[in-house]
Amino acid sequence: MRFSSRMSGVRRSYIREILKVTQNPEVISFAGGLPSPDHFPAQAFAKAASEVLTDCGPQALQYSITEGHPPLREFISRRYKETWGLDIPMEQILITTGSQQGLDLMAKVMLDVGDEVLIERPGYLGAIQAFSLMGAQFLTADLVPGGVNLDQLAQRLRERPKIFYAVPSFQNPSGATYDADTRREVARLIEESDTILLEDNPYGELRFKGEDVPPIRAFMGSDKAALMGSFSKIASPGMRIGWIAAGPDLFHALVTAKQASDLHTSIFAQRVLHRFLETNDLDAHIAVIRKAYGERRDLMVEVIKREFPAEVRCTEPEGGMFLWGELPKGVSAEEVFAKAIERKVAFVPGLPFYVDGTDNAFRLNFSNSTPERIEEGITRLGACLKEVLARHASTASGCQCDAGAPLEI
Amino acid sequence: MRFSSRMSGVRRSYIREILKVTQNPEVISFAGGLPSPDHFPAQAFAKAASEVLTDCGPQALQYSITEGHPPLREFISRRYKETWGLDIPMEQILITTGSQQGLDLMAKVMLDVGDEVLIERPGYLGAIQAFSLMGAQFLTADLVPGGVNLDQLAQRLRERPKIFYAVPSFQNPSGATYDADTRREVARLIEESDTILLEDNPYGELRFKGEDVPPIRAFMGSDKAALMGSFSKIASPGMRIGWIAAGPDLFHALVTAKQASDLHTSIFAQRVLHRFLETNDLDAHIAVIRKAYGERRDLMVEVIKREFPAEVRCTEPEGGMFLWGELPKGVSAEEVFAKAIERKVAFVPGLPFYVDGTDNAFRLNFSNSTPERIEEGITRLGACLKEVLARHASTASGCQCDAGAPLEI
Repeated sequence: MRFSSRMSGVRRSYIREILKVTQNPEVISFAGGLPSPDHFPAQAFAKAASEVLTDCGPQALQYSITEGHPPLREFISRRYKETWGLDIPMEQILITTGSQQGLDLMAKVMLDVGDEVLIERPGYLGAIQAFSLMGAQFLTADLVPGGVNLDQLAQRLRERPKIFYAVPSFQNPSGATYDADTRREVARLIEESDTILLEDNPYGELRFKGEDVPPIRAFMGSDKAALMGSFSKIASPGMRIGWIAAGPDLFHALVTAKQASDLHTSIFAQRVLHRFLETNDLDAHIAVIRKAYGERRDLMVEVIKREFPAEVRCTEPEGGMFLWGELPKGVSAEEVFAKAIERKVAFVPGLPFYVDGTDNAFRLNFSNSTPERIEEGITRLGACLKEVLARHASTASGCQCDAGAPLEI
Repeated sequence: MRFSSRMSGVRRSYIREILKVTQNPEVISFAGGLPSPDHFPAQAFAKAASEVLTDCGPQALQYSITEGHPPLREFISRRYKETWGLDIPMEQILITTGSQQGLDLMAKVMLDVGDEVLIERPGYLGAIQAFSLMGAQFLTADLVPGGVNLDQLAQRLRERPKIFYAVPSFQNPSGATYDADTRREVARLIEESDTILLEDNPYGELRFKGEDVPPIRAFMGSDKAALMGSFSKIASPGMRIGWIAAGPDLFHALVTAKQASDLHTSIFAQRVLHRFLETNDLDAHIAVIRKAYGERRDLMVEVIKREFPAEVRCTEPEGGMFLWGELPKGVSAEEVFAKAIERKVAFVPGLPFYVDGTDNAFRLNFSNSTPERIEEGITRLGACLKEVLARHASTASGCQCDAGAPLEI
C-alpha cells in the first residue's frame, strides 16, 4: 500500500485501544472520557424523534444544507447571548459531526504540512490527532495553576503558529481552568499576534464549584477566534452534534471543507436534538448532571487523599469529567497501568497527551463510575501506586543500574 | 487569514450554490441530486427510533466504536453475500458519515499533495472536491457506451495514479453503466497495476431496466479495491450513513483517519437505521422506488425526444437518478442555464464535473420531480435549447466574430 505520508505522523487513539482492554465488566475503568449514561434523556429523545418524524418526516430524512439546521443554529446563538452577552449570529455557526469534526475542518482549512500549531501541555489527544493528520508541527505552552503559562504563550506566539488551540474550562486531560485574568491576557496576546485562537469548550457548562467564567472570545474585540462547542456532555455524545463559530472568511472556508467532508451532519439527529432542546428545560437537565458529577468528583478526591501515596499529586477540578495525577519524575504511568490492569482497575497513562514523550502523569475519569466503584477502584489504584513507588524507592537506594522496564520514552 | 494552500484548489460546490437559486418553488428544478421524499419511510423510522430508545436508550446515546454498529456492519456483509456471493466480512466494513466521508477518508490516507487520482470523464463532483482538498492532481478516462474507455484506462494506469475512482452503475452525472465485460477488464487492469480501485455504488440498487451486473470487485481475486456504499438512495440521505469496505491494511488506516475526523458516525442514526432494516422488507421498499423512478425516467426520455432539438444528445440510463445531455461543441450549458432560469426551470451545467473546462454538457435529475413537473419543465427547457441553438446557428452563418458571452472557459 502506498499510503500518504501524513498517516505516518498519526497515532491510533491510545485511549480507544485502552477501552478495548477495559471492556471486561470486572475491570473498574476510569479510562474512558464518557459522560454518565444515567443522565441521557432517552425518553425525551424518543418523544422528540416521534414528533419530528410525524410533523416533518420527509425534511428530516432528505439531504439538507451544509451549514446545519437553522433553528438549531439560532438556539446556539441565543444561548451565547443569554449566558455571556456574546453576539455570535447564527450565520456564523456551522453545525459539525461532533466537535472532533470542528478540529478536522480547522486543520484542513488552515494547515499545510509543517505548519505550526500551539497547544496546551498536556493537550487534548483528539486535537493532536486531527492536527497531525494534516501534517502539523506542535509548539506547547504549559498548563499552570490559573490557566496557561503566559510568558511561554507570549514567546511561542512570536513564532507565528497558525493556531493556538485552548480548552480553557475543565480541560481534557488535566481538568485545568483559566481564571478571568488569564483569559483577558490570552485574548490580548492573541489580538496582537498572527495566530488564530481555536477555543474549545465541551465541558464549560459542567461546573460544580466556584464561579462561571466567560469564554476567552468574550474578552476579544475581534473575531480572531473560532469557538467550538458540543452537545455531547450536556445531552448525548452518540448524536454527534457539535458546532464551530467563526467570522465570515473563516466560516466560508469551513463550509467548503465540510461539503467535501460529509456534505452535512445528520439532519435527523439535528432535528431530534433541536426538538428536545425546544421542549425540555436544558438548564434543569444540566443542573442534575452538575450535581451528580460534583458528588463523584468530591468522593474521588476524598478517596485519593486517603489512599494515594503523598508523592502522587492530583488536581482538584471545579468542573468537567477528569482528574489529573502526576507521579514523581522517573516513574512511568505505563508501569502503574500494567500493575493496575492485573488488579482490574484502569486509567489512561499521560503519554498520548504530550508531544514530547513525558510519561509520568495519568488521567482519571470520574463522571462515569458509581460511588461504589470509585471507592473500590481508587483504593485498588492506591495499592498499585504504593507498590510501584516502593519498588522505585528500593531500586533507587539499592542497585541504580537495574535495567528493569524502560522508565522514559 | 493564512489559509492552507489546499483550499485554493477546492471549488465550493457549484451544485449546492445552484440549489439556492432554485429554492423558489415556482422554479421547476432538475438540478438537485435528490431522491424522491415520497418514498422516505418516515413512519417506519419513527417506530424504529422509539423502539431503539426504549430498548437500549443509553447505548444509542453514548459514545461508540469508530468502526460502526456491529449488527449494521453484519447486515451489509450479509447483503453482499446474498446479492453477489461476495465475501466481505463485517470486520472489513467501516460505517461512514455518508459515502462522502468515505471519499474524504480515502483522500486522507492515500494522497500527498500532487499525487495523481484517475477519475471518469465526466466525474462525480463530490469526489473531485474531496480529492482536491488533499491536493490531488487528476487524470481522466472517458465514459463511453458500455462503460469506461479501456484503452485510455490502461494507458493512464501506466502513470501509476494512486486511486482509480469509478462509479460503474448509473453514474453521477452521466447515468452511464459499465457492462459485465468492461467490469471484468477493469478488474484485470487494476490487478496488473499499482493503483487501487475505489468503487462507489450509491445507485446500483436502483435499476429499472436490463439485468443487474455485479460490482467490479466481484471480478477481482484480490482485495486491491475499496468498495463504498450508501443508504442514502434506498432509505434516507438525511441520516448520513454510508460505508467503505477494504482489506485489513487499508481498513486499519481508514479507521485511524476516521477517529481523527469525527470519532464515529451518529450511533443513534446507525441504530435507528439498523432497526428499520431488521423490521422492514428493504427489497420491497426498493422495488417501490425502482418503479417510481423508472416511470419518471421513461417520461423524461419521452418528453425530451418530443421537445429537445435533435442536435442535443441525451443518455437513456437503465437506473439511478440522472440523465446527461450534450450540446453541440461551442455551445455552453451556462448560456442555456441563464435562459432556463428566466423561464423558471433549472438543471446543472456540466462544467463542475470536468477537470478540463468542458462546458457543453448538462445533468438532469428525474427522481425528484412529479410527472406533471417533468412534462412542463422539459417542455420549457426544450424551448430554451431551441432558442440558444438558433442564436448560435445564426451567429455561425452570420458574423463569426460576434463577441457575445464567452462560450469556452
